Amino acid sequence: MNRVTAFKWVPSFAQGSVRDIRVRWALEEAGIPYGDHLIGFEDQATAEYRALQPFGQVPVYRDGTVQMFESGAIVLYIAQSSDALMPADPAGRAMVMTWLFAASNSVEPFVAQLAGIDLFHASEDWAKERRPQVEEMLRKRLADLQTALGDADFFANGAFSAADILMTHVLRDLRHTTIVADYPKLAAYLARCEARPAFQRALADQLAPFKEAEARQPELAGN
Amino acid sequence: MNRVTAFKWVPSFAQGSVRDIRVRWALEEAGIPYGDHLIGFEDQATAEYRALQPFGQVPVYRDGTVQMFESGAIVLYIAQSSDALMPADPAGRAMVMTWLFAASNSVEPFVAQLAGIDLFHASEDWAKERRPQVEEMLRKRLADLQTALGDADFFANGAFSAADILMTHVLRDLRHTTIVADYPKLAAYLARCEARPAFQRALADQLAPFKEAEARQPELAGN
Repeated sequence: MNRVTAFKWVPSFAQGSVRDIRVRWALEEAGIPYGDHLIGFEDQATAEYRALQPFGQVPVYRDGTVQMFESGAIVLYIAQSSDALMPADPAGRAMVMTWLFAASNSVEPFVAQLAGIDLFHASEDWAKERRPQVEEMLRKRLADLQTALGDADFFANGAFSAADILMTHVLRDLRHTTIVADYPKLAAYLARCEARPAFQRALADQLAPFKEAEARQPELAGN
Repeated sequence: MNRVTAFKWVPSFAQGSVRDIRVRWALEEAGIPYGDHLIGFEDQATAEYRALQPFGQVPVYRDGTVQMFESGAIVLYIAQSSDALMPADPAGRAMVMTWLFAASNSVEPFVAQLAGIDLFHASEDWAKERRPQVEEMLRKRLADLQTALGDADFFANGAFSAADILMTHVLRDLRHTTIVADYPKLAAYLARCEARPAFQRALADQLAPFKEAEARQPELAGN
């Protein structure tokens, strides 16, 4: 059985954002059945888990052939054997890889800096001084990204691909703000990707154990 | 002819760090001949260049089959057809992809935040307040990274791979500090990778036009 590690519970700000959702979504698009292996925060530092994931994070992915970590690598690995996530021609495959790395390395750092300030440091003096610079750089990047998307529905080759899984996940981490709405083509793109049944299933499957944990321990809810 | 875009000249802090060096190094390891196409800062905003690279950056890569941007994607593409950069077995290839993304998405953000403060914001109040937090997070990540490397020479499968090209490039961006020296296995790893003849050729080839430009325009030198 293909298996993805995920958390038993995370605080509300992280619900729907933990990176196993990228892998769940890819597996759903590819039609590959899988199970999840849920871990707790107490497992993150164990030598046993660190041997699978050196930074103590999720997800780890295992199938009968490979054992991997890094959600971007796992999504690309799954895509390489599914025409639902990557076309067959070399030029098209290269463009999917290009946009997958663009999401991960050219867009995510700008989003992560803003989200990091807003979620973890909002009350600190340095964050108040720095945030306008971070938002300005992010907006420049999003403007370039919108220009690159143009009138296409998806980033690589005009068709949905593994790259859109990462790009959607990255842009969703701005949902505590109204920034994406200022880039209407990106906002429509994000809505288009989030509406996919495979994404909705992945999201529901990530959230289900969190809701169960909160039903068992009501003091968790709202955190 | 395979072709990589690079800059005619960059300021001294960026010399040896511009991302075409990743692609040059991969091509050198793989024994693939290539030429470079040098651009100026004035080319970065043109519609013609943006059609190739939506963010106006380098490198862009073209061979007879593909046209790509994102240095991580290009290095992985080159690796997929060279046993000098990736083994043949699926589990080994997955591990190279894992560590290539780890360099790009789990190590680079920590390095880039510190380097960004030191190179561009050192005199700003927010940066003085923030830097200790950033260095602390970076050091935790480097400690985990050193543990993961253990006594191996390289990160994936114990053999040099495409992943080491990205990891080396990322760790080199701390060379304005003495931080890496505090992690002796990482320091030895970095020295081992930088000593490779293919890296040295890539570095020399990136630097050559900068030196020529500075010989023609001495006012550039030292900037």
